[in-house]
Amino acid sequence: MSKEKPSIPKGTRDFAPDEIARRNYIFDTIRKVYQLYGYKPIETPSMENLSTLMGKYGEEGDRLIFRILNSGDYLAKTNADDLNKRDSLKLSAQICEKALRYDLTVPFARYVVQHQNDITFPFKRYQIQPVWRADRPQKGRYREFFQCDADVIGSNSLFNEFELVKIIDQVFEQLGVNITVKINNRKILAGIAEFIGFADKIIDITVAIDKLDKIGLEKVNQELLERGLTRDAVDALQPVLLLQGDEKQKLATLKIILAQSPTGLKGIEEMEEVFALLEQVPSRCKVELDLTLARGLNYYTGAIIEVKANDVAMGSICGGGRYDDLTGIFGMPDVSGVGISFGADRIYDVMLELGLFPENLLTFTQVLLVNFGMQEQSYALQVLMELRQSGISAELYPEAAKMKKQMQYADKNNIPFVIVAGQNEMESNQVSLKIMKTGEQIALDKSAIVAYLNDLT
Amino acid sequence: MSKEKPSIPKGTRDFAPDEIARRNYIFDTIRKVYQLYGYKPIETPSMENLSTLMGKYGEEGDRLIFRILNSGDYLAKTNADDLNKRDSLKLSAQICEKALRYDLTVPFARYVVQHQNDITFPFKRYQIQPVWRADRPQKGRYREFFQCDADVIGSNSLFNEFELVKIIDQVFEQLGVNITVKINNRKILAGIAEFIGFADKIIDITVAIDKLDKIGLEKVNQELLERGLTRDAVDALQPVLLLQGDEKQKLATLKIILAQSPTGLKGIEEMEEVFALLEQVPSRCKVELDLTLARGLNYYTGAIIEVKANDVAMGSICGGGRYDDLTGIFGMPDVSGVGISFGADRIYDVMLELGLFPENLLTFTQVLLVNFGMQEQSYALQVLMELRQSGISAELYPEAAKMKKQMQYADKNNIPFVIVAGQNEMESNQVSLKIMKTGEQIALDKSAIVAYLNDLT
Repeated sequence: MSKEKPSIPKGTRDFAPDEIARRNYIFDTIRKVYQLYGYKPIETPSMENLSTLMGKYGEEGDRLIFRILNSGDYLAKTNADDLNKRDSLKLSAQICEKALRYDLTVPFARYVVQHQNDITFPFKRYQIQPVWRADRPQKGRYREFFQCDADVIGSNSLFNEFELVKIIDQVFEQLGVNITVKINNRKILAGIAEFIGFADKIIDITVAIDKLDKIGLEKVNQELLERGLTRDAVDALQPVLLLQGDEKQKLATLKIILAQSPTGLKGIEEMEEVFALLEQVPSRCKVELDLTLARGLNYYTGAIIEVKANDVAMGSICGGGRYDDLTGIFGMPDVSGVGISFGADRIYDVMLELGLFPENLLTFTQVLLVNFGMQEQSYALQVLMELRQSGISAELYPEAAKMKKQMQYADKNNIPFVIVAGQNEMESNQVSLKIMKTGEQIALDKSAIVAYLNDLT
Repeated sequence: MSKEKPSIPKGTRDFAPDEIARRNYIFDTIRKVYQLYGYKPIETPSMENLSTLMGKYGEEGDRLIFRILNSGDYLAKTNADDLNKRDSLKLSAQICEKALRYDLTVPFARYVVQHQNDITFPFKRYQIQPVWRADRPQKGRYREFFQCDADVIGSNSLFNEFELVKIIDQVFEQLGVNITVKINNRKILAGIAEFIGFADKIIDITVAIDKLDKIGLEKVNQELLERGLTRDAVDALQPVLLLQGDEKQKLATLKIILAQSPTGLKGIEEMEEVFALLEQVPSRCKVELDLTLARGLNYYTGAIIEVKANDVAMGSICGGGRYDDLTGIFGMPDVSGVGISFGADRIYDVMLELGLFPENLLTFTQVLLVNFGMQEQSYALQVLMELRQSGISAELYPEAAKMKKQMQYADKNNIPFVIVAGQNEMESNQVSLKIMKTGEQIALDKSAIVAYLNDLT
């Protein structure tokens, strides 16, 4: 057997107990809010058929899919020509029929089509699972990371968009993260592009608008011209670029500007409905219309949602939107979906930076019982089992090591209470309880220790 | 885009909400007991370097490891000769440097060696994650399945073996599954093989003994001869085969039989210590010494543990043992480990067959509010948010569909309560609560509904 220096593939991570505790704090918060809002959990396999994934994420996405080598004699039936030419691309389709999940949305679409007869629509599902991408690893970007998705499928109602914003509000309220929710609508963007006569330039226009804060109006206009817009079109766009006021005012102005665009008006109407609902139930976070929001423009058809942390410089920590034909790729057309996805890894980094994780997360075992050897062990064992019986996480040091070593174990493992029960304590039917934080030591009747600790923990 | 009929790779599974709820019930039970006993969670990446996994599971195991194709132009640097000869085996080492985790034990060993400077020993860790094996799928055997492992590393104390049995006892008590824990010790088996002069036939001997109940003593003896034992050796083995009595008596008899084998006596001593500890704290399950237990003989060096469900014909639903040199393969010798692993999929099947899952697991949303349209929506919305505020999972049907459709939605989704708040209810500041199970309908003041449901749920 080899004695290599152990390591893990780049872009992947081990998680130590402290990290797991913090990660689960995020996952559990998201899960509970999803459930509170009536979303139900599903899970799909880590592997999908390669054909399920290919062509769904664009050319770049296809390249980033991790393929799984077929088992057995996978080269037997490969094309000799492709083999001789070392055509990696052509060969991979012949030697791999499975691949690792790239996101949770495509597997969900596949799930819905495959199980459509067992599903009651509208179907509100959440899914918290890892995904894999062969991306170049860098700070905050991993090759294995978790997504936390919720989607409603089979309902056109904008009430769903409203609810998803409320979910975002509630999750980040519980996590203690100050956020701003930005909403846009693809139909408004399409309306704008249509109105200035460049329907095909929707992405160029949005990318340029996005730079308004950074480079100023003049340079944005210049960029728009460079991207192929006419001077007339750029002029026509000025009222949009200069849009001001609160959400209601912005939408009212847009309504005038886009009066001739049915698509644009539809988008405005949709946003009005969502903001009207949001007005009825106060949110803790700010929710704003942001026309520069252009994420996922190649699949979103209605609302586009993005969440930013207010107090830390960090990319989007949650995002989503509506896609009118999610399941069409699998032969089930005209089913509309809307969903969001929390970026757990980024939320983790934000919370760590802001010190938002509760301190008690890092306490696992509550009580360590010192082991003095066989004779004392029986006495300690009774206390140990009683503590566990009452739900207190406890352990007896597994051997009669030196006192110092056992106390170090408690200290390093962040165990707040240590019970000492040696000959003296046994004779008086007591235990000594040491409170690690203060160093205080208390003598207690053996029969009283569980109740005492139950009050403290 | 293709319109293929969607499916998933064979041996993998989608999990619907009901299945997730039941699976999480098992995972959560195991997790809580692990924590109660002072085990801390870690997680490792789904992918390991291929070199970390290869050679750790025997030749058969190596073949069952799922390899991940290198990204990019993976054929560029391959050996031309291997390519021309279509040597699948040789080529796979050149085109794949990563593979999917095959179990949780080897990644744990790798983790311990890699992070040894950050770990306080003894290190008690648990890990609940999926593993992948390119096994031929069949009933109850999947290519992706979860393992739920707990191990202590860096402690030789038999107190750990005792604790692991207690964990097993408590997990299955909480799940309501009647079980028998069988324990063996590799040193006793080695002592027996040594004592009859066939130290190298330890596995043949155990395999034959294992058939005692099924084929009887005569045929076992015959098989032992066929497997290469001498008549003398088979004769010498008879007292072992005829071993009777309770655990104490069996161990006492073995002590006499194996008096000349230091290894055998060491094994007996170890088992005596574990059973002595078990005597001090009564278990709900039966714990018995079983010399036919031979699982994992190529890596276990001390205790071997296996758990059987008493009321269902099913293979082992939990197992484990001690391995004296777990981390040696990664260059950190002489560190002893002992651990167990719950087979969540089999436990699931056992519990389903015996009807042991609590009924309320299948309730997700507690309350559906019927949607009558824009005007009534605001009224319902207040109730909805109040319910969620108090922790009750609730949803408003997202559109004003026909009453029948909305009631069907509640029914199909197993939602126990439906709130109807139409014009009539609004005028009297009330809501109607329908209890789905009984069909009963109650009029309540709008302000009283949350408290009322809080009592019921």
